[in-house]
Amino acid sequence: MTFKYENVYLNEVSTIAGPYENNGPLGRYYDKVYNDFYCGTKTWEQAECRMLIDSVDMVLYKANKLKNDIDLHISGDLLNQIVSTNYASASIGIPLIGIYSACSTSVLGLIIGSNMVDKEQIRNCLISTSSHNNGAEKQFRQPVEYGGPKKKTTTFTTTGAASFLLSSKKSKIKVESATIGIVTDLGVTDSFNMGAVMAPSAAVTIHNHLKNLKREASYYDLILTGDLGVYGKKILVDYMKTEYNIKLKNYNDTACMIYDLEKQPVYAGGSGPACLPLVFNSYIYEKMLKGELGRVLLVATGALLSPSMVNQKLSIPSISHAISLEVTDDIL
Amino acid sequence: MTFKYENVYLNEVSTIAGPYENNGPLGRYYDKVYNDFYCGTKTWEQAECRMLIDSVDMVLYKANKLKNDIDLHISGDLLNQIVSTNYASASIGIPLIGIYSACSTSVLGLIIGSNMVDKEQIRNCLISTSSHNNGAEKQFRQPVEYGGPKKKTTTFTTTGAASFLLSSKKSKIKVESATIGIVTDLGVTDSFNMGAVMAPSAAVTIHNHLKNLKREASYYDLILTGDLGVYGKKILVDYMKTEYNIKLKNYNDTACMIYDLEKQPVYAGGSGPACLPLVFNSYIYEKMLKGELGRVLLVATGALLSPSMVNQKLSIPSISHAISLEVTDDIL
Repeated sequence: MTFKYENVYLNEVSTIAGPYENNGPLGRYYDKVYNDFYCGTKTWEQAECRMLIDSVDMVLYKANKLKNDIDLHISGDLLNQIVSTNYASASIGIPLIGIYSACSTSVLGLIIGSNMVDKEQIRNCLISTSSHNNGAEKQFRQPVEYGGPKKKTTTFTTTGAASFLLSSKKSKIKVESATIGIVTDLGVTDSFNMGAVMAPSAAVTIHNHLKNLKREASYYDLILTGDLGVYGKKILVDYMKTEYNIKLKNYNDTACMIYDLEKQPVYAGGSGPACLPLVFNSYIYEKMLKGELGRVLLVATGALLSPSMVNQKLSIPSISHAISLEVTDDIL
Repeated sequence: MTFKYENVYLNEVSTIAGPYENNGPLGRYYDKVYNDFYCGTKTWEQAECRMLIDSVDMVLYKANKLKNDIDLHISGDLLNQIVSTNYASASIGIPLIGIYSACSTSVLGLIIGSNMVDKEQIRNCLISTSSHNNGAEKQFRQPVEYGGPKKKTTTFTTTGAASFLLSSKKSKIKVESATIGIVTDLGVTDSFNMGAVMAPSAAVTIHNHLKNLKREASYYDLILTGDLGVYGKKILVDYMKTEYNIKLKNYNDTACMIYDLEKQPVYAGGSGPACLPLVFNSYIYEKMLKGELGRVLLVATGALLSPSMVNQKLSIPSISHAISLEVTDDIL
């Protein structure tokens, strides 16, 4: 399902990052960083919640807005019952749409919000997401203290939170179109190889987006997936070529950008719902504002991993959503 | 945040129910029932997934549609990582928006879908939700086999699934308006008293809905919450009177309708995302088609319960969403 928009702009963004992200190559771009995993709270879940609240406060501060000025908040995260979102929302107090789409949450939220802004059903909205390395490891794999060895294909869940402000007020970045993904399941059962799980769903969504809009991949100055990791990125490039005869050229993956893969102990790269928006809302956003990138397709990829279902020997489904952002003509 | 719609109709509904629901007073209204908790699968999670797929197949069959005719599926459930939704979607194959809003999922889905249908961004959409008693008990409280005694205020998670078909094609029931809720947290920490957790959020949403549309509660032939239970229902009536001076008269709660509270061992009544749509999509829907009810406000109430956060001694937040359905003039 592909939408075209006429009336939606990205007005402001924010990024809150944890210690590994701060030590990564994009550290200097983040709005606020925490150098420990607790962020002044007593638990990892509450730390994630703290970062989510910070990201909302930060985007409002940067946009010179109050909470009362905002019509709607769309948010989701990786924790069970999306508790970071729900507990943060109790103190934020903006009407909430809670979503769950694993690491594709940010773009799904942007799509729901863009549809409502485009037709003036709301004046504006915030979209947020978050993830926390230790909280996610504990929930999906093993407690970090257990110290189990990991495969090279494993990705490292990003600690951080990010928010976006959308409205119909013109800005330098227009939300131009978007495609909602379809759940795909090619039978991968290895929860330590999320790149292989997600690459086919990213391919399906990119293909559908380009086909529905009658575009070539070269239309975009950058196609940015998040987060397939080193191996998933290679699978996607191969899969697009073999299955659809599409050559991805101006292409990168946020898992491979957020950390220094040679120096940091992050296996195949970053993951988690916060990974793509941390990279986009900092480094890429700045490049777009400077006019160095004109058209960017963000493709958020989500592995719909469930420990219950993996224990039942079922394979892992995946979904990816895409949104097209374009620098408005007057500053190009 | 309140929306008014001009162009959205409820075209068809479906209900799939489990054994306790089949034995309840509305048993004869359901489209399909299972008399065991496994529904032909090997686990409770896969059983819930089976019912969700059934509910989609059933609503398509009743509407004489194919999956290819449907633009979008909006779905959520109570299991971690909304696995019923995600695993069902892998076989359904319709573009998916996955949402998490606990027992308020159905109405949140109806609102997102109505916004898109109303402005012709999509031709139509399905909204689904599901829950499973044993799966939910295991995840949120204790395994059923443990047999722990429960408080009278406990609700009994409904086993079932339901789907709605929305489009701009005129039908007897129009989606007239809706209000997205705000997360409220009044400090309740008792996970065996969800009615007390949710009643204040239901009150806030009903009050905002009526205020934003300049309506009295008596505008509606029925205000139907789901699912506060016997005690939560009383709290809501008191709270509305004390806090807002609103007298709820044409009011009922689906938790108190889905089971025979005197004969079935269900404590304070039904709960789970499937409870409200099982009651609405069967008994109430039929009453609207017959013209016995003209204006109905559905208020789905969700306790954002998380075992992690309860173990951290935090209170339980809640959110409620409301949607207004009206019988179209020509058949009244």
